[in-house]
Amino acid sequence: MRNVICARCVKCGKEYEAVPDLTNCVCGGILDVIYDYDYIKARFTKEQLAARKNPTMWRYRELLPVEETTPDTELRVGWSPLYEAPRLAERLGLKKLWIKDDGVNPTASLKDRASAMAVAKAREAGAKVIACSSTGNAASSLAGNAAAAGLKTYIFVPARAPKGKVAQLMTFGATVISVQGSYEDTFELSKAAIEKWGWYNRNAAINPYLSEGKKTVGLEIMEQLNWQVPDYIAISVGDGCTIAGLWKGLKDLYAIGFIDRLPRLISAQAAGCYPINRAVETGEPWQPMEENTLADSIAVGVPRNADKAIAAIRESGGLTVELTDAEIMAAQKLLGESCGVFGEPAGVTGTAGVKKLLEQGRLPADSTVVCVVTGNGLKDVANAIAARGEPLRCPSDMEKLLEAFAANEIYP
Amino acid sequence: MRNVICARCVKCGKEYEAVPDLTNCVCGGILDVIYDYDYIKARFTKEQLAARKNPTMWRYRELLPVEETTPDTELRVGWSPLYEAPRLAERLGLKKLWIKDDGVNPTASLKDRASAMAVAKAREAGAKVIACSSTGNAASSLAGNAAAAGLKTYIFVPARAPKGKVAQLMTFGATVISVQGSYEDTFELSKAAIEKWGWYNRNAAINPYLSEGKKTVGLEIMEQLNWQVPDYIAISVGDGCTIAGLWKGLKDLYAIGFIDRLPRLISAQAAGCYPINRAVETGEPWQPMEENTLADSIAVGVPRNADKAIAAIRESGGLTVELTDAEIMAAQKLLGESCGVFGEPAGVTGTAGVKKLLEQGRLPADSTVVCVVTGNGLKDVANAIAARGEPLRCPSDMEKLLEAFAANEIYP
Repeated sequence: MRNVICARCVKCGKEYEAVPDLTNCVCGGILDVIYDYDYIKARFTKEQLAARKNPTMWRYRELLPVEETTPDTELRVGWSPLYEAPRLAERLGLKKLWIKDDGVNPTASLKDRASAMAVAKAREAGAKVIACSSTGNAASSLAGNAAAAGLKTYIFVPARAPKGKVAQLMTFGATVISVQGSYEDTFELSKAAIEKWGWYNRNAAINPYLSEGKKTVGLEIMEQLNWQVPDYIAISVGDGCTIAGLWKGLKDLYAIGFIDRLPRLISAQAAGCYPINRAVETGEPWQPMEENTLADSIAVGVPRNADKAIAAIRESGGLTVELTDAEIMAAQKLLGESCGVFGEPAGVTGTAGVKKLLEQGRLPADSTVVCVVTGNGLKDVANAIAARGEPLRCPSDMEKLLEAFAANEIYP
Repeated sequence: MRNVICARCVKCGKEYEAVPDLTNCVCGGILDVIYDYDYIKARFTKEQLAARKNPTMWRYRELLPVEETTPDTELRVGWSPLYEAPRLAERLGLKKLWIKDDGVNPTASLKDRASAMAVAKAREAGAKVIACSSTGNAASSLAGNAAAAGLKTYIFVPARAPKGKVAQLMTFGATVISVQGSYEDTFELSKAAIEKWGWYNRNAAINPYLSEGKKTVGLEIMEQLNWQVPDYIAISVGDGCTIAGLWKGLKDLYAIGFIDRLPRLISAQAAGCYPINRAVETGEPWQPMEENTLADSIAVGVPRNADKAIAAIRESGGLTVELTDAEIMAAQKLLGESCGVFGEPAGVTGTAGVKKLLEQGRLPADSTVVCVVTGNGLKDVANAIAARGEPLRCPSDMEKLLEAFAANEIYP
């Protein structure tokens, strides 16, 4: 990889050769992939990129840590749509708003970006098995992308993972271990098993390549905005890997001169579980928290990528915001009815955060904002059903329909 | 619309001006949009198309029945991935196989193509409200696409529609009427209400433009195969509108000289509900059937587009095949584990049909085949959960994991 110099520990600065199966630093810190931006700058232009037809995350190869000979992964990951959302902007009282819908990825979440990267790197490592622990989306994305590549997967999920997510990954042929315990317990068991059997490790906290996959969401947002930088990018935060990846992508683009300033990040966490935001807000080191939210994909009490995430939020001059479950579910409806985008609870938390920050006066109304929807609402239908209530019931009879409309104050 | 000559009844041949709010012929027959292929041929080339960056169904405007001034619809519908599936082909004993994954559309099914067309035509008609009846996917796609366009929707679903589909469309802000009865009862109530209130009609059996939207799946398959025609295209069939649309698209391409032959269609229906296939197989007119299948999206006992569908299957020299629920659910797993594609039961029925036809010796092993996956498996998780069973349960303890693996004969 001539575009990559090394991997460097974010804690102690120790450097490592960027081999495919990198894990954490000996000090326990997470590694960060360091690029040779001069090399990249000399070989990569906006014009080259614009001419590319590849509608996947692999269109950004010059900025990705893979060998030139490593093939694109099989599923069509990335290049998700960025929708301008004028009606939602108006309802929120915001100047300009875009929605990046990552729920249309092959397994219906942003995590496909990391899992596609894991598959690419597992191939470079010559591995035939990949494993991870996950609250759900990392799991199903790994299972799907690995299945498409002909690789075997072992996946550890906490017992509370929604059944739909579990069914999805079992359909992909994964061996699924449902761990009776928290996400933390799940992570620890997966770690032990990965060590024992030498599987390729797709845990985002340990494998530094994964946030390099996730950063493509930032690269795409900027290309889709024709390199016009928005004031803010809002995203939900659980483990911390996604917001760290997003920031990395933006910094990459700044480093090679594709953009001339950086946006500020909005880190949206659940009010029932916000260890990363709490650390940013208090200036104290992060501490574990309980996982009290229905937004299961961001219910991470012990975030494994807290360091990178906290640094990203701080560096960007970012905002933090915490949302109740009710606020999250209201944002789901708001996005659906104004934009036609159905996000899972964690997926719409960034949008809920923008609404709350505007109401609190912390986000100026004349801002330009991108909200990333990180996962599809079909992933967790139970909460949507509970929040929406029941539809109008009626027999096939026009008189009864008129009665039902009148009773529900519906006037067509 | 200078590319459109008129709309013609498939039953009696009566012709109508192609106004935006066309419904059925006075004789009750369904209309078919008739194009001026000479006009189109003179203005539309493969090279023009190849240069287009528009990754949506609207890239085929010359072949679509919309005014030049009508804007593209808001959501990114169409241009779904076509995956080559060598491992699945090998497992089935088939020369060459591709999977067209329409489950990655904005609301996760092929029906988005028809609903986007409905939104475009409703705009031309100046309508502010669109209505339909549906087993689910047409409904949620209409709700989503209309919400993105700022249009209001009234949607009639049969009481058996999966809750996830209902929750999705309520999230999109639709007024949902759950009708206590069959799909037929649901359709009749929606028809009466549409007449009463003058809503724009998105019922595929009545609005001839919808299959023109659906045909884009056929246009895409051929462009993605670089105009190399496969021997067969397999697709699940319920109402009949989708297979009729697919066939229309293929015939369009043949008429303008983009392809030099036509593939044969494979019409896959549920063994518990196959009125269209039965008509093709017996040569008799179609008769209503009961709706005994878990593949809810194709559980249509009274298909409203039977005439167009039967004609399409016959014209193409097509094959018909009926699948049990068990065969459908097995195909869901097969597609998932070999291709990383998770389809809903109706969505994978085409693939199940290809497997069965090969086993029956009715489909030659040296064929080239495209299977269309019409909807995402996340739409109906209950059946997937039931078919897959439970994951391995284990506490966060390595010894217990070893025991659990041994007990389940898992040897990493």
